[in-house]
Amino acid sequence: MIKVGIIGATGYTGAELVRLLSLHPRVELVALTSRTYGGEKIAEVYPALSGYSELICENLPPEELLERAEVVFIALPHGHAAPLAARALERGVKVIDLGADLRFREVKTYESWYKVKHGAPELAASAVYGLPELNREAIRRAKVVANPGCYPTSAILGLAPLLKGGYVDPASIIIDAKSGVSGAGREAKLTSLFVECNESLNPYGVATHRHTPEIEQELSRLAATEVKVTFTPHLLPISRGILSTIYATLVRPLTEAELRQLYLDFYAGEPFVQLLPPGKWPRTRWVYGSNNCQLNLALDERTGRVIVASVIDNLTKGASGQAVQNLNLMCGFPETTALAMPGICP
Amino acid sequence: MIKVGIIGATGYTGAELVRLLSLHPRVELVALTSRTYGGEKIAEVYPALSGYSELICENLPPEELLERAEVVFIALPHGHAAPLAARALERGVKVIDLGADLRFREVKTYESWYKVKHGAPELAASAVYGLPELNREAIRRAKVVANPGCYPTSAILGLAPLLKGGYVDPASIIIDAKSGVSGAGREAKLTSLFVECNESLNPYGVATHRHTPEIEQELSRLAATEVKVTFTPHLLPISRGILSTIYATLVRPLTEAELRQLYLDFYAGEPFVQLLPPGKWPRTRWVYGSNNCQLNLALDERTGRVIVASVIDNLTKGASGQAVQNLNLMCGFPETTALAMPGICP
Amino acid sequence: MIKVGIIGATGYTGAELVRLLSLHPRVELVALTSRTYGGEKIAEVYPALSGYSELICENLPPEELLERAEVVFIALPHGHAAPLAARALERGVKVIDLGADLRFREVKTYESWYKVKHGAPELAASAVYGLPELNREAIRRAKVVANPGCYPTSAILGLAPLLKGGYVDPASIIIDAKSGVSGAGREAKLTSLFVECNESLNPYGVATHRHTPEIEQELSRLAATEVKVTFTPHLLPISRGILSTIYATLVRPLTEAELRQLYLDFYAGEPFVQLLPPGKWPRTRWVYGSNNCQLNLALDERTGRVIVASVIDNLTKGASGQAVQNLNLMCGFPETTALAMPGICP
Amino acid sequence: MIKVGIIGATGYTGAELVRLLSLHPRVELVALTSRTYGGEKIAEVYPALSGYSELICENLPPEELLERAEVVFIALPHGHAAPLAARALERGVKVIDLGADLRFREVKTYESWYKVKHGAPELAASAVYGLPELNREAIRRAKVVANPGCYPTSAILGLAPLLKGGYVDPASIIIDAKSGVSGAGREAKLTSLFVECNESLNPYGVATHRHTPEIEQELSRLAATEVKVTFTPHLLPISRGILSTIYATLVRPLTEAELRQLYLDFYAGEPFVQLLPPGKWPRTRWVYGSNNCQLNLALDERTGRVIVASVIDNLTKGASGQAVQNLNLMCGFPETTALAMPGICP
Repeated sequence: MIKVGIIGATGYTGAELVRLLSLHPRVELVALTSRTYGGEKIAEVYPALSGYSELICENLPPEELLERAEVVFIALPHGHAAPLAARALERGVKVIDLGADLRFREVKTYESWYKVKHGAPELAASAVYGLPELNREAIRRAKVVANPGCYPTSAILGLAPLLKGGYVDPASIIIDAKSGVSGAGREAKLTSLFVECNESLNPYGVATHRHTPEIEQELSRLAATEVKVTFTPHLLPISRGILSTIYATLVRPLTEAELRQLYLDFYAGEPFVQLLPPGKWPRTRWVYGSNNCQLNLALDERTGRVIVASVIDNLTKGASGQAVQNLNLMCGFPETTALAMPGICP
Repeated sequence: MIKVGIIGATGYTGAELVRLLSLHPRVELVALTSRTYGGEKIAEVYPALSGYSELICENLPPEELLERAEVVFIALPHGHAAPLAARALERGVKVIDLGADLRFREVKTYESWYKVKHGAPELAASAVYGLPELNREAIRRAKVVANPGCYPTSAILGLAPLLKGGYVDPASIIIDAKSGVSGAGREAKLTSLFVECNESLNPYGVATHRHTPEIEQELSRLAATEVKVTFTPHLLPISRGILSTIYATLVRPLTEAELRQLYLDFYAGEPFVQLLPPGKWPRTRWVYGSNNCQLNLALDERTGRVIVASVIDNLTKGASGQAVQNLNLMCGFPETTALAMPGICP
Repeated sequence: MIKVGIIGATGYTGAELVRLLSLHPRVELVALTSRTYGGEKIAEVYPALSGYSELICENLPPEELLERAEVVFIALPHGHAAPLAARALERGVKVIDLGADLRFREVKTYESWYKVKHGAPELAASAVYGLPELNREAIRRAKVVANPGCYPTSAILGLAPLLKGGYVDPASIIIDAKSGVSGAGREAKLTSLFVECNESLNPYGVATHRHTPEIEQELSRLAATEVKVTFTPHLLPISRGILSTIYATLVRPLTEAELRQLYLDFYAGEPFVQLLPPGKWPRTRWVYGSNNCQLNLALDERTGRVIVASVIDNLTKGASGQAVQNLNLMCGFPETTALAMPGICP
Repeated sequence: MIKVGIIGATGYTGAELVRLLSLHPRVELVALTSRTYGGEKIAEVYPALSGYSELICENLPPEELLERAEVVFIALPHGHAAPLAARALERGVKVIDLGADLRFREVKTYESWYKVKHGAPELAASAVYGLPELNREAIRRAKVVANPGCYPTSAILGLAPLLKGGYVDPASIIIDAKSGVSGAGREAKLTSLFVECNESLNPYGVATHRHTPEIEQELSRLAATEVKVTFTPHLLPISRGILSTIYATLVRPLTEAELRQLYLDFYAGEPFVQLLPPGKWPRTRWVYGSNNCQLNLALDERTGRVIVASVIDNLTKGASGQAVQNLNLMCGFPETTALAMPGICP
């Protein structure tokens, strides 16, 4: 049993961590911090957990957790995690940060898109970007893992086979992504109200969303050349789920069958990535509550474009599930522990 | 490992059985029958199962399953299960029927509400009504279990402590129940279309719904007197979940605290029933995808009525989860095997 | 053309007033007040109004409106309207208050349920309860109209024919009501977030909701005897719409056909109340965006209870539409002006 | 008063026509045909219309309507309208066809995408494509109007200013469109069930949808050069509404302000098209139930692409509202009659 703490346990990603870790046979959850709900049982904040957790949230300085836990998940707004990770590293506590602080190799990229000073620039190069399908071995050895953003997870998994092989024009990529409202977090704000979201769809952050440079960093690394993308997120009236519809222009002639084979080869043996049969287009609800990423693609022969659809649950593979997957790798547990579950469907 | 088959595997309750049994370490799923999808992989019918089941649906005469399986789940429309259960019993195959055929002790009650002839009247008295919280020991010994209806599960669990103790007037009970659309099954019919259900709520089957006599049978047994209820189901624009709001008039003065204690005592040690803290009213989403039943109550002192709210997931505790719970009891497995999971929330 | 102002125009009921009045040929909307959006066009706060209103919200002391308008709608939280109404009365400005301040004839009923001091006790007796189906003539003559609450509108219209004739036991009434989330207003609070409401249903304010005494006041007046009800509101995952399911025990034998005739007679000639054909149970979406109230009923012969279902759009007939109906009556316009529209369906 | 008939009145677009025409002061609706609901009142098929229409659906040969009406709307599946339109033309009855039969100037384009023989090839050239913002004068003079498809309406209005002026590369256009489920019609099919659509989003018809050549035909005409687009529709869990997110690469440098001015100029005076203020991205709910099209755009300077978002209500501006707008033009009524209403929002 490994001792695990969660810093910022009462947001949606924190609660999803508690849910998944309650199913984990090798983890002892030793502490949950919350500034808002200190003194309350997590099962009162999230009654879905009634009968599954007796833990009481604590309004603790995050540093105190470093004395109780061997691994900490950080689920705080950006800007708070980097200094904490540095402290943890000194004490030999492993860190999985669900925020953006440690995702960028270039400090200035982070600073220019997030408009804050980087809190631990010395970690920028050494933190591992926690997408197991691309970085599995590095994650196993990592002390600090930067858990990917939800949109980037879905976009990068959708594009990796194409860019790795240099099959598409790196200037042609457009990612039209749609996310459920849980992606906006548990903050009481007007734009997240039921009545404002229900029966509606809208783009936001057009041409300016902070997940753009994260996607570009990882795609550029895969392509070994600079990739710039147009990325448009949309707010979708569902609780959980992201669908990214991705467009890229082929630079050499490939059939749809060859494209499918590329994906099958690239993701062979991956426990959480599935290419669906031809014509079965992924639906967000097929991955609801699961750590799966489901993909499909088509070749638009009239225009020479490949169209890829990629779905994940933004709170699971897009955040807390992937974080547990990273924990499993970092601790030498079987990678699918607490995660080997199909989506809740219907 | 026990060999298990599902007859009628491609409806919503069938798919939910496959999902749950894919998590069950003591079950080998050996056959899935389907009249519509024979020859197709269940994971093509329900792509959420991709990577979790390789089974192919078979268009088999149900009887053939009796040669392959030690336990069969029957998820067919009413009228088909009773003769099959009789056959299974002869062959020593255990049966859990998710339909209504075997729920009634009085053949004539079944026949008058369901408008069909009973297919195995000799089983009416011996089949066990599979509500573990009331009939646990009988289920352990049962060969044939009649899995309760979804509405009855939520209503009976909500009322049992009051009726068992004789605390309420048996003529005063009103059950105003609301169910998600999955309760209507996976049939392509106008009234189940998205556009017909979305942004809408309506009662149906008012004063005539077939779950009425099932609720009355079990409540009458608990109360040891005849109970007649007014039961009004409603169609709710959600996929999964039932909330029953229940009204009953006290026959002797009790405080709200005493009422709470009644429930705590009645359900002490139950793994799947939770009385929430005072003032936390159950929400359907708190049990989403789980086998839990969450309850709360209030005393309306102005009118002398108790008001109880009871939520379940209609496909899990209201159908397939409870069926797996019954399987566990019948086979001597720990009762919570494959079911010990909190609701997916948020 | 009559000059009209709205005090508190940027909440949901305010916006619905603007929408409806933009269709009104006899109304000139002269001022909209808002504390939050002063200086912004209402069409920027609610872009649905783009092209239909050029009005700019003003952060004005409400009193100033009394100099510009002949009629004012007050859409403020309770406690603010009563003194304003008193002031308006002095100046000869007509008032339609969408809040609770002036709905109660007994000052102490208001004060004990709303926990505030009544702001104009002298108006309690003279303000007219603005339910046109019951009080049409008084509304025509009124200077101050207290627009009914949303739940009371649906409940009272559902019960009026039964109570007027003394057909049911006044101690037997249970109202199980379900409302869309717009009923909670446009406040940024946790319980109104999309993710907290979606795929969920829950009761709230059980045995304590403030609409209880309002319902009882009007039903008691109709029955000419004291009526006490059990009233349970629920939060429903839709934007607009209320369904009240109502239970009452008959005190003399009536057939369902006789009951239907009662309703047909009671509502004969009413432009906004429809009894649906037998077996067609009202759906909230059938009145979406309209001022209609649709009803149906059944007799549960087994228990002697009548079950009535009543639907309205909580923002229209349950608030702003009814307010415009009252305006029409008070100003001598045809009663259906700007309101004669079917629900948006599908 | 003009006599109007609807052929195929009980589908969703038919019902929307009845709703809108019930508000039209110059139209007498004389006949509704339905093969399924002959003999039933339209207000029983769509109870939202209770009190607003007493018309009874008739199971008539469509030809009979030509004797009763001066204008007919045809809301039938493709393949049925063309011969009917030819017949109507002979008799001097004006036709507005909501299907695809008469939208294509090239018979072979229609036949190759729709896989049927064209039913009236002689009309292909003379029928007018009923998008008033582009073809207003031709519509005024037309005898037969082909009402545009829902996706094409939103896509073409979103792109017209860019293509008209030759500002974008005609090979660069990608349209990622999302539609509510009412777009799939009122047919009882599995993929339109509530449970299959709810909490989900998926692409469909990728690279093969029949609205592609319709969009290309109109854009090519505007651009005066061949335009080929990649068009990806998605099924969105809402009842009404389409959002098209559109990508195109600029061929000459323009600022965002210049782009906005292009749109303002192009749509100056248009009653139903609104460019929202900078940064206000259109939401489907802002046009709910209305005939409006709301637009906004951004320039992605990093990639040289313009991103346009365009929303309509698929049943109103995307079908029946636009059809009424065409009726108004063809009959010389004010263009906005029965249509000058903001979206129902909240």
